[in-house]
Amino acid sequence: MSATLTDEVLASFARTPDARLRAVLERVVVHLHELVREVEPTVAEWEAAIGFLTAIGAACDETRQEFILLSDVLGVSSLVEALNGAPVESGGTESTVLGPFHVTASPPRELGDSIDDLGGGRRALVTGRVVDPAGNAVPGAEIDVWQCTEDGFYDVQQPERQPAGNGRGLFRADADGRFRFRTVVPGHYPIPTDGPVGALLAATRRHPYRPAHVHLLVGAPGFATLTTHLFVRGSPYLDADAVFAVKEGLVVDFAEVDVDTAGDGAPWSPTVDDGLDRPYRHADVEVVLVPAGLASAP
Amino acid sequence: MSATLTDEVLASFARTPDARLRAVLERVVVHLHELVREVEPTVAEWEAAIGFLTAIGAACDETRQEFILLSDVLGVSSLVEALNGAPVESGGTESTVLGPFHVTASPPRELGDSIDDLGGGRRALVTGRVVDPAGNAVPGAEIDVWQCTEDGFYDVQQPERQPAGNGRGLFRADADGRFRFRTVVPGHYPIPTDGPVGALLAATRRHPYRPAHVHLLVGAPGFATLTTHLFVRGSPYLDADAVFAVKEGLVVDFAEVDVDTAGDGAPWSPTVDDGLDRPYRHADVEVVLVPAGLASAP
Repeated sequence: MSATLTDEVLASFARTPDARLRAVLERVVVHLHELVREVEPTVAEWEAAIGFLTAIGAACDETRQEFILLSDVLGVSSLVEALNGAPVESGGTESTVLGPFHVTASPPRELGDSIDDLGGGRRALVTGRVVDPAGNAVPGAEIDVWQCTEDGFYDVQQPERQPAGNGRGLFRADADGRFRFRTVVPGHYPIPTDGPVGALLAATRRHPYRPAHVHLLVGAPGFATLTTHLFVRGSPYLDADAVFAVKEGLVVDFAEVDVDTAGDGAPWSPTVDDGLDRPYRHADVEVVLVPAGLASAP
Repeated sequence: MSATLTDEVLASFARTPDARLRAVLERVVVHLHELVREVEPTVAEWEAAIGFLTAIGAACDETRQEFILLSDVLGVSSLVEALNGAPVESGGTESTVLGPFHVTASPPRELGDSIDDLGGGRRALVTGRVVDPAGNAVPGAEIDVWQCTEDGFYDVQQPERQPAGNGRGLFRADADGRFRFRTVVPGHYPIPTDGPVGALLAATRRHPYRPAHVHLLVGAPGFATLTTHLFVRGSPYLDADAVFAVKEGLVVDFAEVDVDTAGDGAPWSPTVDDGLDRPYRHADVEVVLVPAGLASAP
């Protein structure tokens, strides 16, 4: 009877006009039914699963995305990103998870602006260049940046303490593909643990911490949009990220710049007068976008 | 890298104190990751899936359970019930899905009471006896009953038209295991289609209808609690239930009783003076509970 039931459900999708939707639903049903047959949940366990999903749903609002958080802690987000990111042989910068905090639009800012509206913390300068795999500039690339404070909180988590848009910025690279913004070095932090995902981590004795990072979402016409992080070298939890998102190639130095040295004239060098009080930290990155067709999935 | 990622996620559950929770989560992760590898969702598709689950969550409230509805239309609820119900060889009454409308407590009523607080519709009498597989009475069994109106709506769907508890009743069988209540013949009806599950059915060209039925949840100390339906023989959609819950053995006659015949003295016979205006429909069922240990899962 049970095998027949699965066949019956699969057959119910036979008239689905969208072939992709039908194919996905069929695989969802096959895996769901196999899972149920394998674990043989009691009715109480099935009810607990329904209750867990319902609690996840209830925890979501305009600024909190508990389903993404669940996808993150189960490694699903990281897997989806891995399948969609540029293949290693393309030479593109590695992608990693979007995370649950890309829930408000980043305020447009000018190159060189600070995304830190609070002051305090370890000052940092992030400079970078967006290029194609051959090293040619990608002029006018859009760089969406978001990060937490040194204490580990995003603006949406502390509406009473942080102005909306703090730690966020939408930049446009210059004609040479370069971008530059000021910020503070982000802290490592626990993902939100006051919801059902936090309860899951507690029940499985998993820690909720993510190593310090800055989110980047970089796009340009003709190129695959890149979702990635800059991880802060030396941060705790680089080897045990709660959401399985660390890739060694994304770990960058936030090097201390503590003396006034003569500039070499390069406009983005930290050695010229950059308007930042010393000491500060400086990270410089090259972001390699691959043409849209080269990413492993459209 | 991807295989490593799955291993990394599985390893993260290594310190889970509850062995059952760990085992279930491991199978969930294996199937989720296999599903993702098979269908290779684009980031937009993954976002659509997150959005779908979020919309399901947003559709849930105290009286609406869209996750159960999703479980129902994917055949998962029916599968869980099949795995938990009494095995065929036990002789117990077949189980079927709980459904999404068991969301309020049924009002306690006396044997013979009507669960229809509205009047109108095709009057019906449901009589039955709760027995063990050997045919011995299960005295004092609790019978929780809920059904929709002739128009196909549960009380919680029409709070402005139906008093709370209409179509619901909590009965206690007598010393001989017998129960009896008056009602109206329920209608076939569409499951709620104004939410994300309705959108899924529309996108897959599936109809939303369920054949007419009365829900029963029957329990007694020492016996496995039985979740089942009485399906109304002759109802449309008995061969195409939107939630895959029909079992032939659960289809019962709601036979017309239209003349006053002499009673034979049996207290539960429809031929005695039953206080019901003729004609009315009469369904009589035997509910066989199996000892708790005999159900396939605790």
